[in-house]
Amino acid sequence: MTANIASPNMSLDLDRIRAAHERIRPYVKRTPVLTSSRLDDASGASLFFKCENLQRIGAFKARGATNAVFALDDATAKRGVATHSSGNHGTALARAAKLRKIPAHIVMPKNSTKVKVRAVESYGGHVVFCEPTQSAREAACADVIAKTGATLIHSFENEDVMAGQGTAAIELLEEVDVDLVICPIGGGGLLCGTAVAAKSMRPTIKVIAAEPANADDAAQSFHAKKRIVTEKKFTIADGLRTNVGERNFPIIQRYVDDVVTVSEEAIVAAMRTIWETMKIIIEPSAAVPYAAMVEGEIDISGKRVGIILTGGNVDLDALPWIV
Amino acid sequence: MTANIASPNMSLDLDRIRAAHERIRPYVKRTPVLTSSRLDDASGASLFFKCENLQRIGAFKARGATNAVFALDDATAKRGVATHSSGNHGTALARAAKLRKIPAHIVMPKNSTKVKVRAVESYGGHVVFCEPTQSAREAACADVIAKTGATLIHSFENEDVMAGQGTAAIELLEEVDVDLVICPIGGGGLLCGTAVAAKSMRPTIKVIAAEPANADDAAQSFHAKKRIVTEKKFTIADGLRTNVGERNFPIIQRYVDDVVTVSEEAIVAAMRTIWETMKIIIEPSAAVPYAAMVEGEIDISGKRVGIILTGGNVDLDALPWIV
Repeated sequence: MTANIASPNMSLDLDRIRAAHERIRPYVKRTPVLTSSRLDDASGASLFFKCENLQRIGAFKARGATNAVFALDDATAKRGVATHSSGNHGTALARAAKLRKIPAHIVMPKNSTKVKVRAVESYGGHVVFCEPTQSAREAACADVIAKTGATLIHSFENEDVMAGQGTAAIELLEEVDVDLVICPIGGGGLLCGTAVAAKSMRPTIKVIAAEPANADDAAQSFHAKKRIVTEKKFTIADGLRTNVGERNFPIIQRYVDDVVTVSEEAIVAAMRTIWETMKIIIEPSAAVPYAAMVEGEIDISGKRVGIILTGGNVDLDALPWIV
Repeated sequence: MTANIASPNMSLDLDRIRAAHERIRPYVKRTPVLTSSRLDDASGASLFFKCENLQRIGAFKARGATNAVFALDDATAKRGVATHSSGNHGTALARAAKLRKIPAHIVMPKNSTKVKVRAVESYGGHVVFCEPTQSAREAACADVIAKTGATLIHSFENEDVMAGQGTAAIELLEEVDVDLVICPIGGGGLLCGTAVAAKSMRPTIKVIAAEPANADDAAQSFHAKKRIVTEKKFTIADGLRTNVGERNFPIIQRYVDDVVTVSEEAIVAAMRTIWETMKIIIEPSAAVPYAAMVEGEIDISGKRVGIILTGGNVDLDALPWIV
């Protein structure tokens, strides 16, 4: 039942995710799995929402960053950690570093919102501003690492991060038995951890990824069977704008059953439905799996469906349905 | 430890609340108790939030109405139930009646919002409109009862309702040990059930009620040691506008340690803080206990504090911090 289906020489497997789970247990929440009879009726399925919006720092990213930081040996850890992130991973890394009492350097584009900068700083993270381009972010991060000896903790192309993100799926499947799991895809850290955990614990489970049609590089790549980097249109699901990672894509090809896309309208509608019906706050990226069900992209009829609600960090002064 | 401190001839006691808990178990959720290290840091206490906003129909009212409906004998139940309510109790009663397959007549002021009317109707409740005055509500309800033989299920002056509402406190105290419990007060149904359950399970616990300063009849009554009915100013905490019930007040005098009041500004600020920090949606009435802590009305320093978050039914198009 819980056989480890990854071959021993693969670096991301169920053992590694279970080890991550033990490692991060003192520092993250076991989030509740919530249900809604209204949404069950509306969808014709039984839905189980793993509420990572209720996780520390308001997102599943607390899991991966904490695992990566606590997996470092003492000598390496002492030199600190670094990353480039304008979102939840930066906050999660700053928090994890604070817990381990080591420095964290977070490279952020200089047009980042004050809320995000303040979140990193509230955990004692050292913010390094850069121009808002991918190359500037990477250069600034390399520079910090050269100067400090800090270890790069990439937000998704890092097996310890992927293993940490996969711990949410372990908890979900310990609590409920489901026929499929739906998970948003940005860089693929959560998806890789989720897919390896789920397929290892329940070999017959289906794992479906969902992404905005306006940032559909993962769907294109999955169907073309090769990694395609695309120009992105704007999507409100800001956590999913990134391209799928080079180290993530082969894992996705092996363990994920399908990648589907959703419209911007469906994302906003799904977000509002979940707020209104479940009385919880989710960010647009977290609404993408439910949006995919509503748009009929996934066959869920009569099935038991696990959905990872990835985060709840939203600007309450700028809700997408209020103009 | 769980001695029943109410005398045998009193109608609301721990046995009755435990019986209610058994009776409603198949029909309501055991809601999670959530914590927030940020709010613990901010308050200097350990806070345990019993999330009745995540309850069926989005409020604790599901508990009391379900208990009252399922406590009826078959012959009485068959004739249906009735109430006057412009809020969550009406929805809760309609839902409970539907579960028992009996009619529910809900008297609502004709200026009720469409959302509230639709909520009652979505559970098959029969809505009877009346003029928006207390006397018109009572007259319309008496009229329905005379015509149909339905049983009045008052939203708070009913011991089965109070017993049902008290089941949230049982679950809270089964899960965590606390020094005090803070609970909002409107009519007093939740407060009576909570106070009797809490004091019976843990005789040393303190039970504090909180209400808007703009609807402070319970605080006035408590301190004057006699029930005072007041003219209300407007409060955003619409669930707490009512006067404390005649049958509720003696129970409150006996079991509640203090009643404190809060400003409108503090209610809105507390609501936003909980949304932002905990990623859950609560209605203004549910924010009143946290507002009381922020305004320094309650000595919580270093204590373990249980807070009942009563509901999450909010118009998402009209948030109080967006003008």
